[in-house]
Amino acid sequence: MLVRVLGAGAGGGFPQWNCNCENCKAVRAGAAGFVPRTQSSLAVSSDGKAWVLLNASPDLRQQIADARALQPGPEDQKRASPIRAAVITNGDVDHMAGLINLRELQPFSIYAHRRVLNVLNGNSIFNILNAEAVPRTELELGMSTPLSGDGNDLGLTVEAFDVPGKIALYLEDENAGPDLGTDTGDTVGLKVTDQTSGVSFFYIPGCATVDDRLAQRLKGADLLFFDGTLYEDDEMIRQDLMPKTGARMGHISISGANGSIAAFSPLKVKRKIYVHINNSNPVLDDNSPERQQTEAAGWEVGYDGMEIQI
Amino acid sequence: MLVRVLGAGAGGGFPQWNCNCENCKAVRAGAAGFVPRTQSSLAVSSDGKAWVLLNASPDLRQQIADARALQPGPEDQKRASPIRAAVITNGDVDHMAGLINLRELQPFSIYAHRRVLNVLNGNSIFNILNAEAVPRTELELGMSTPLSGDGNDLGLTVEAFDVPGKIALYLEDENAGPDLGTDTGDTVGLKVTDQTSGVSFFYIPGCATVDDRLAQRLKGADLLFFDGTLYEDDEMIRQDLMPKTGARMGHISISGANGSIAAFSPLKVKRKIYVHINNSNPVLDDNSPERQQTEAAGWEVGYDGMEIQI
Repeated sequence: MLVRVLGAGAGGGFPQWNCNCENCKAVRAGAAGFVPRTQSSLAVSSDGKAWVLLNASPDLRQQIADARALQPGPEDQKRASPIRAAVITNGDVDHMAGLINLRELQPFSIYAHRRVLNVLNGNSIFNILNAEAVPRTELELGMSTPLSGDGNDLGLTVEAFDVPGKIALYLEDENAGPDLGTDTGDTVGLKVTDQTSGVSFFYIPGCATVDDRLAQRLKGADLLFFDGTLYEDDEMIRQDLMPKTGARMGHISISGANGSIAAFSPLKVKRKIYVHINNSNPVLDDNSPERQQTEAAGWEVGYDGMEIQI
Repeated sequence: MLVRVLGAGAGGGFPQWNCNCENCKAVRAGAAGFVPRTQSSLAVSSDGKAWVLLNASPDLRQQIADARALQPGPEDQKRASPIRAAVITNGDVDHMAGLINLRELQPFSIYAHRRVLNVLNGNSIFNILNAEAVPRTELELGMSTPLSGDGNDLGLTVEAFDVPGKIALYLEDENAGPDLGTDTGDTVGLKVTDQTSGVSFFYIPGCATVDDRLAQRLKGADLLFFDGTLYEDDEMIRQDLMPKTGARMGHISISGANGSIAAFSPLKVKRKIYVHINNSNPVLDDNSPERQQTEAAGWEVGYDGMEIQI
């Protein structure tokens, strides 16, 4: 099974269009140790030929242009794509809006929880994906679903499971109480398994906290891509960027007693990679102390184009 | 007044994600005479500091990354952007979906006809643009509207006028008769005028035919950006790409008795530039006979990053 990080950035990417934080200034200036990152998405393939997107970011067109494996080959038909399916973990713009790039009547399959399909179905702009060519299939939580695309089995199964999180920003309902209208299925993690080899990995780009149920599920996993949005819960406030904590946004921080380094320390996950990294996060500076501490704790910091074979 | 072509391609861009036509194969292979193009958008500025987008393509994040003038300067506030307004000519994905890239509570103004605002208002994903920070203002046809953004006058006025065209693809209603539910305002052209110098230009990225009214309006214009989608009305059918003519898609072709070269031949427009160029169009090959004929007829073929001062 091959996994490619299409984009390791959080919403807005790195740099973000309107952000002038020290990280964004440095990456715009081409400073040493700073690498641009597009928005949050992976691609996975059992055979290196047919690919499944895990989330579809607004940068998908650029991500396809940067990945030869996701483009039609010279000998393919006049209209063709190795992208056969897309699995969406939540309704956030950075995870779902990129589906509009996959128009043009090219057959592929969309898989998502009912809560996310409801958002797709409720926004007419996604009708650019003709439902006859692009079926939308509901993922039931805790069920292993074999993926297919354009009538072909893709050699992969996916299991979606609920993780602590929050409804998408543009769907928040301030009148619905402290959970803002969040319901089960608004944020899921994925376990992807190769049907031939039996190997699997986890993908959890958004997660508010690692509770006991999640810890038990991930214990001893071979490979994990995990929410690396913020290093510290209040870093956006301290950097004078936005008056929101990570907790308010539904994202656990990397550091601290309640952070992901601490939570995963006893779980013996063999390979752990941060993705969905916000522009404010000091781990985006290859030479920062925070980056060193993160790597010393056994984590890798994801980057666009990162490829892993398991 | 400064005008920058952010993207000269049509919907899908060049190359298009799933297209394997000769043009797309050539540009992917880096063949001489072929240059990639992102999707359809211009930017205009009266003073070179504050900018207005004319359409917002899905490639907007990449287009901003490629244009230093559209990024915050090193001395600007922590959150800042020179983009102060966006004027949208229709509801097509390639012209409107890029608005989602402009989230993060950055104040700017959206201007569009009521028909397009209805689409924005009816798709919850665009609520990512908080209405308090990003007001939506209706453009009335035939009225000259001064543009402002974040409370500042931008030194430009825009007049929207109805042009022959079609409702956006994902809103087509097959049961509504041959016009598919198209109404006045679904496709507009823009006249942009610099309030200080009085100079102006026209931007018409989608247009089904040049009727007498449009011809009279454009006669003797200084500068025009015009619909260059197809070279021949049936080229997508002949290339075995899609069973649709340009006429069916609401786009005039460049060549032929009913094409735009013929229509503009008597109109004495001083500078004429094709934009919204589809991947199937032979003018995308710098060395093609069609490109030579187009240029010999007094037209330029737009490209990403093209800058014009008038």
